[in-house]
Amino acid sequence: MSVTAAAGFRAAAATAGLKASGTPDVALVVNDGPRHDAAAVFTSNRCKANPVLWTERTITDGRLRAVVLNSGGANCYNGPEGFQTTHSSAELVGELLDGGAFDVGVCSTGMIGPLLDREKLESGIRSAHDALSTGDDAGTAAATAIMTTDTRPKQAASAGDGWTVGGMAKGAGMLAPGLATMLVVITTDAVVDAPVLDAALREATRTTFDRLDTDGCMSTNDTVILMASGASGVEANHDALAASVTAVCADLTAQLWTDAEGAHHDIEIVVTGAASDDDAVTAGRAVARSNLFKAAVFGKDPNWGRVLAAVGTTDAVFDPHDITVTMNGVMVCRAGGTEAGDPVDDVDMSGRHLRVGVDLGAGEASATILTSDLTHEYVHENSAYST
Amino acid sequence: MSVTAAAGFRAAAATAGLKASGTPDVALVVNDGPRHDAAAVFTSNRCKANPVLWTERTITDGRLRAVVLNSGGANCYNGPEGFQTTHSSAELVGELLDGGAFDVGVCSTGMIGPLLDREKLESGIRSAHDALSTGDDAGTAAATAIMTTDTRPKQAASAGDGWTVGGMAKGAGMLAPGLATMLVVITTDAVVDAPVLDAALREATRTTFDRLDTDGCMSTNDTVILMASGASGVEANHDALAASVTAVCADLTAQLWTDAEGAHHDIEIVVTGAASDDDAVTAGRAVARSNLFKAAVFGKDPNWGRVLAAVGTTDAVFDPHDITVTMNGVMVCRAGGTEAGDPVDDVDMSGRHLRVGVDLGAGEASATILTSDLTHEYVHENSAYST
Repeated sequence: MSVTAAAGFRAAAATAGLKASGTPDVALVVNDGPRHDAAAVFTSNRCKANPVLWTERTITDGRLRAVVLNSGGANCYNGPEGFQTTHSSAELVGELLDGGAFDVGVCSTGMIGPLLDREKLESGIRSAHDALSTGDDAGTAAATAIMTTDTRPKQAASAGDGWTVGGMAKGAGMLAPGLATMLVVITTDAVVDAPVLDAALREATRTTFDRLDTDGCMSTNDTVILMASGASGVEANHDALAASVTAVCADLTAQLWTDAEGAHHDIEIVVTGAASDDDAVTAGRAVARSNLFKAAVFGKDPNWGRVLAAVGTTDAVFDPHDITVTMNGVMVCRAGGTEAGDPVDDVDMSGRHLRVGVDLGAGEASATILTSDLTHEYVHENSAYST
Repeated sequence: MSVTAAAGFRAAAATAGLKASGTPDVALVVNDGPRHDAAAVFTSNRCKANPVLWTERTITDGRLRAVVLNSGGANCYNGPEGFQTTHSSAELVGELLDGGAFDVGVCSTGMIGPLLDREKLESGIRSAHDALSTGDDAGTAAATAIMTTDTRPKQAASAGDGWTVGGMAKGAGMLAPGLATMLVVITTDAVVDAPVLDAALREATRTTFDRLDTDGCMSTNDTVILMASGASGVEANHDALAASVTAVCADLTAQLWTDAEGAHHDIEIVVTGAASDDDAVTAGRAVARSNLFKAAVFGKDPNWGRVLAAVGTTDAVFDPHDITVTMNGVMVCRAGGTEAGDPVDDVDMSGRHLRVGVDLGAGEASATILTSDLTHEYVHENSAYST
């Protein structure tokens, strides 16, 4: 159930002192092979952090020996010295593994702007390297070291036919609570070429992480890396691998969703009856980004008017008078209000989960977007973060 | 300084009992002519309220005798009966003025979904009609009756060469605090044809109300109506009229901005160095919609990384390493962090006003977007609104 679930991988954590809290802040995941195929996807934010700029280059040959991750600083928008820190940490990991910097991916999370203390970071990397080990404890240590405002480590695994996929994550999606950073490392011991890994990873992230939208803010550091060791000796075809990688991504997505900063409700927006997948995603995302709707959910107020107002801002195909809205199974808006809806008082919002169904009445496509309510705790955590 | 500042206009308010608070909730503005030229702009939300659907039709001939407005209900998404309520209230006003329903604009604000009590509304309209009068007190009464969570009435006037423009507003922009509705009525006694009114109004709203973005949520009811009585007997050309209408719209915009629900800071985002006006607006709006940035401002935290992360999500032309960010005059980010910024501790955020300067370094265009911080009070007011 961790990033070390697949054979051929070791992991470790260390405390470098980058975080004021003094908790572990450096993680290392090493692929011992025999193969080193890899793929990655990154934030589409045009203001990219130094580790993203670095890893985008190193992944071009479809090969990685290791990934080094740190919390306690995003290493973003801090000039050439910041990029040099990323480069030198990759060089150090490469040296320790008798390889080169170009086979090392780097991920960082934390505040934008400040420089990372390079000496502390390098000392942490050496400690983590000394502690590398297989087994779930090592994976859990790594998953814990990359936590920032996360309240728990996030890990998952999926068994294929003779091979395994494991993974770890931190943060809360494209738009992240507090630190605005999602970092994910996924491993497999299947024998699989880099292009197949890349296709499987893109297919998996499109319908999992990309449909999590907790606060509408896209990170400068989001990175998802998939590495394959081939240690099982068993080949995986694209479909089987994509299914397992998708299962791990979906599991991690759910863990990110339900640990979103300050959230009282996990809101699942299920858009059906859309003319296309894109329309369904667009409509669902508009609802997920409505502060008015999210504040209403915090107040346990089934305010469906705010759902319709959000859908109305999109270019999705629909007739305003064909839309149906349900909340936890109660049809609060029927045919865009032209027929009487069921009583809003029937909606039970006392639990943590709220399922909002939006039927656009325009086709057969559907999509689910995951979001959170807008709470006092969200405002508090994000107003107090860097101070 | 009110909607009755221009000659030829009377106004009044009444308490119909639509609002639980028992405060005035119906306003009437009547153009006594001799001319009745009019223009209007509406929300671009595709889920439009009944009064918007109605007034979109009545304005097509460029003529209005009166506008009737109510708080206490948006009259939106409540089926054919809701539209019938809008229609019958326009008919009643038409009758009372010895005219037709089609010369009456209607505006509503409040919660989406519930039906308005037609009997109460009509009784309020009759009372308002009985109370119609010229003078600032009447204008102020009307401006007060359309308030919802507004803490004060919003009025403005501008003197032209022999004519006057006056106006009133409620709400807080495209994305409105609480009720998600901005209603504006502007009057002038200039002699001016409807097409000129329309051009002047569109020009004015494009750079005033359209650049106010307090919470990212677009209303189903937003309406801005401009009526001309010709009572001054003085003709106004397009440029002079547009300047006065823009002045009134800018004044009302500032009043909406500084009364945004729950706000502790009025945030002015000034984007310069853009390749085009559209780019400047896009970049500014992205910052205005970043919950992370807005929560940081609430916490008096000059977190410029969140400004860059927001700008990075847009398609505006820029090089990430050419961007400069200032906060209340302190250059906190210089050349995208490649040169040292001034100390963030020098930023004084103790006052209500925060000016964020973003220089994209990509051209000569600029735009200013007005927004508010994300506070506990915003969450509280919008989580408790319909309950």
